[in-house]
Amino acid sequence: MTPTTATSTRTAYDELVAISKETQLIGATAGLLSWDQEVNMPPEGVAYRSRQMSVLARLHHETFTAPRMGELLAECEGDGELMSDPLSVEAVNVRELRRLYDRQTRLPPALVAEEAELASLGQHIWAKARKDSEFARFAPTLEKIVELLRRKAECFGWAEGGEPWDALAEDYEPGCTAAGVEAVFTPLRTRLQAFLQEIAGAPKRPSNAFNERRLPVDKQEKFVRFVAESIGFDFQRGRLDVSTHPFCSSTHPCDVRLTTRFHEDNVNDALGSTMHEAGHGIYEQGLLGEHIGTPMCDAVSLGIHESQSRMWENQVGRSRTFWRWCHPKLADFFGKDVADLDLETVYQGVNIVTPDFIRVEADEATYNMHIMVRFEIERALMKGDLSVRELPGVWNGKYKEYLGLDVPDDARGCLQDVHWSSAAMGYFPTYTLGNLYCAQFFEKARADIPDLEEQFARGQFDDLRRWLNTHIHEQGGRYRPHELCEVVTGAPLSADPLMRHLEGKLRPLYGL
Amino acid sequence: MTPTTATSTRTAYDELVAISKETQLIGATAGLLSWDQEVNMPPEGVAYRSRQMSVLARLHHETFTAPRMGELLAECEGDGELMSDPLSVEAVNVRELRRLYDRQTRLPPALVAEEAELASLGQHIWAKARKDSEFARFAPTLEKIVELLRRKAECFGWAEGGEPWDALAEDYEPGCTAAGVEAVFTPLRTRLQAFLQEIAGAPKRPSNAFNERRLPVDKQEKFVRFVAESIGFDFQRGRLDVSTHPFCSSTHPCDVRLTTRFHEDNVNDALGSTMHEAGHGIYEQGLLGEHIGTPMCDAVSLGIHESQSRMWENQVGRSRTFWRWCHPKLADFFGKDVADLDLETVYQGVNIVTPDFIRVEADEATYNMHIMVRFEIERALMKGDLSVRELPGVWNGKYKEYLGLDVPDDARGCLQDVHWSSAAMGYFPTYTLGNLYCAQFFEKARADIPDLEEQFARGQFDDLRRWLNTHIHEQGGRYRPHELCEVVTGAPLSADPLMRHLEGKLRPLYGL
Repeated sequence: MTPTTATSTRTAYDELVAISKETQLIGATAGLLSWDQEVNMPPEGVAYRSRQMSVLARLHHETFTAPRMGELLAECEGDGELMSDPLSVEAVNVRELRRLYDRQTRLPPALVAEEAELASLGQHIWAKARKDSEFARFAPTLEKIVELLRRKAECFGWAEGGEPWDALAEDYEPGCTAAGVEAVFTPLRTRLQAFLQEIAGAPKRPSNAFNERRLPVDKQEKFVRFVAESIGFDFQRGRLDVSTHPFCSSTHPCDVRLTTRFHEDNVNDALGSTMHEAGHGIYEQGLLGEHIGTPMCDAVSLGIHESQSRMWENQVGRSRTFWRWCHPKLADFFGKDVADLDLETVYQGVNIVTPDFIRVEADEATYNMHIMVRFEIERALMKGDLSVRELPGVWNGKYKEYLGLDVPDDARGCLQDVHWSSAAMGYFPTYTLGNLYCAQFFEKARADIPDLEEQFARGQFDDLRRWLNTHIHEQGGRYRPHELCEVVTGAPLSADPLMRHLEGKLRPLYGL
Repeated sequence: MTPTTATSTRTAYDELVAISKETQLIGATAGLLSWDQEVNMPPEGVAYRSRQMSVLARLHHETFTAPRMGELLAECEGDGELMSDPLSVEAVNVRELRRLYDRQTRLPPALVAEEAELASLGQHIWAKARKDSEFARFAPTLEKIVELLRRKAECFGWAEGGEPWDALAEDYEPGCTAAGVEAVFTPLRTRLQAFLQEIAGAPKRPSNAFNERRLPVDKQEKFVRFVAESIGFDFQRGRLDVSTHPFCSSTHPCDVRLTTRFHEDNVNDALGSTMHEAGHGIYEQGLLGEHIGTPMCDAVSLGIHESQSRMWENQVGRSRTFWRWCHPKLADFFGKDVADLDLETVYQGVNIVTPDFIRVEADEATYNMHIMVRFEIERALMKGDLSVRELPGVWNGKYKEYLGLDVPDDARGCLQDVHWSSAAMGYFPTYTLGNLYCAQFFEKARADIPDLEEQFARGQFDDLRRWLNTHIHEQGGRYRPHELCEVVTGAPLSADPLMRHLEGKLRPLYGL
């Protein structure tokens, strides 16, 4: 290759990166507007905001799918030198931009705008329907969303033997298929259901006293902020606000926004939500700013993202050593209101297993059953095997079958999650994949840092955060999810670490 | 004209409006990001935010100055039927879009992006320099801003006999020139200075007790929110937050965001700022939603905008009848902390004249002197008669001359305002024009609604708000500022109503 060609390809790569950065800026703007809609927007602002989101989605799509982008990708791909090391920053960026470009160019711009508007409007209608627990008010909108997502899946297409759901899941978990998820979920459900039955009939029952304590919301707010900061969320580069459904919104590593929610009678919900979202936030803050606006500064997948939130929520936040540090802090923040709660009572409270209706409040053991219900329903909706009208009945039936629960109303049933209202299907399984990745990563971190859990008891979380920074966050989009798992842990994803984690913790608590 | 042509022009008009609406959506997005930067953004988010603003400014500019826009404007202008009534919605939109298009097409896209980035960064650097009261830290950025604005003025050009400042002022007050402002300001300064000297030597001095009362910020917050709502700001279509420098940000009539600020020792500052910004907000909420995204849903000018904020801040909020209603409310919100403050003491406190350093805290009488200082300085900066380095010295000299004050530091001197840091020069005089318009409008409203001020004493503000809705807000961009003044009041703008208002109120208070 002559120097001239190399220079020209380098220029092509630079131009490619410039377009990627501009696209990311527009996407980040849409992300901020979306955050604002949940946190700040006055009630009557919604119609205009939907149009605003739609225009931004169209601009994003237009910029990213411009024919120039295709030319630049081809030019870069043809440069053997640039692509020689497939794990180099340049090769990863070209590979991932190609994947995204090929997907985006399959979508008509009108569909992109339509989806953005429907998603924005859908969330608003869902929030009202949920408030009044009235699925019928949301159903016509959900029908439109399902119809649109089926059209979208048709645009993407799916592999031989696959199904429409696969086409959507690719956006959240590259390489993920419904059949693949089913292959993981079916045996996991068998093991979990057996274990949950053991727990239901266990000789001992942990104390629930911590979860019944009423604690003032303003003190809860100070407390969870303190914990988020202690575990390493950087408030110079982030915020914490309140929204109906907790989430983490990141426009770039220097502006990462978490939300949580508060109930006077459940500080554990606020703490769990905050540590969960802070885990997402620590991932985003740990991405390398030098690659901002390119796939090398993007998370690998939602499953890997969820492994990070679960890490801090469960592996850290529900561990005995964490509570050896945090239990005295409770007294600092809540004073006499918690004076009678000893360490053991609190530790039992945060780990109690109670089959219940709400996914985001679920304990570690039942959580994955909630996901399985959703996965099966959205898969059927996409296949056309289930109509929106039938959804509440099927939902309630599955909750009876998997968790033995009679769902009392739609607000605590099929209206509880924001995802479908924002046109996100194919997303839910990433939560369970995240739990599996998380347990496997944590076993490795514990092997690499022998006194890791003892550090938590001293309020030291830096070693774990740095380990995650190095092995996961700073890798950006270098590996595909399953590759990252193998690179980091030396083994393919397995359900064993999660089951070891759950059984290791819960058997003693339940006297099993 | 054949029906076919009419249809095609109608189509051209519809397409013109569609582009206008899209441009407005992008502009509104930039507006929201700007609000977010002041209210929410984590400190380290600034560099990326500046790039984000720059991309949005470029997209806005590209969309609005597309050659298609020029074709559509020409086509509409050529349609005698569409343009037959120059005050019709269609003719006004075409006229104003032409004016904006001609201005925007004179700006190179690179300059637009550069300005947006510099303005965003400038505000950040200014905020830090102001905090430390160190002009030298802001000076290099201000030099860049002045240099950029002079280039911008060159792009726009100015009329024979005019000067660079005129080219910038047009964005804020169409038709405004430095010579025109000087012609209004010079005689006004003479009358005001004479009156201020009378006040300085007056036999009586109003009580300042109200302004020395320490009142808890959380109660102040509830109080000012109550007042904003009472005078007619609609919280279903708006918000109130806190920022260093109070402002009103509107993306459309259903999402209008005010900010204010609180000092424990000065509820009057928070109240005045809130009523001021609520006045801006009531204007924005009063624009007609059916014309959203077109000039017919835009404010006429900043001078007219300011007339609305001053209306509620001064003509209402510093009137005796307003306080007959509001004085008992003080007790409701602050209890025993205000028990000893009678109506007369409070009324005197909100109207006391005290030459001081800070523009936004200035009383009605001295306020315009602050504006004159800024106007003279920015005019000279733009002409090249003054360098940034000399600015603090000249500023302090003028404060001594006009207000008899020795400026103690730059934070209370030339660093106090956000405007120049955000590349806004040509803006300041609109504040004084606003005061003049305001007084003239209020005299007319009082003539139209005989018991207007008595209504305030009963907490009734609807008649005034509706009068402003009808005569000013709902007119959108139909008239130019000076035309609107004549249409509404039947007379050209004059300093007499403002001087009548000030002297009528202040002479009795000072025993003159």
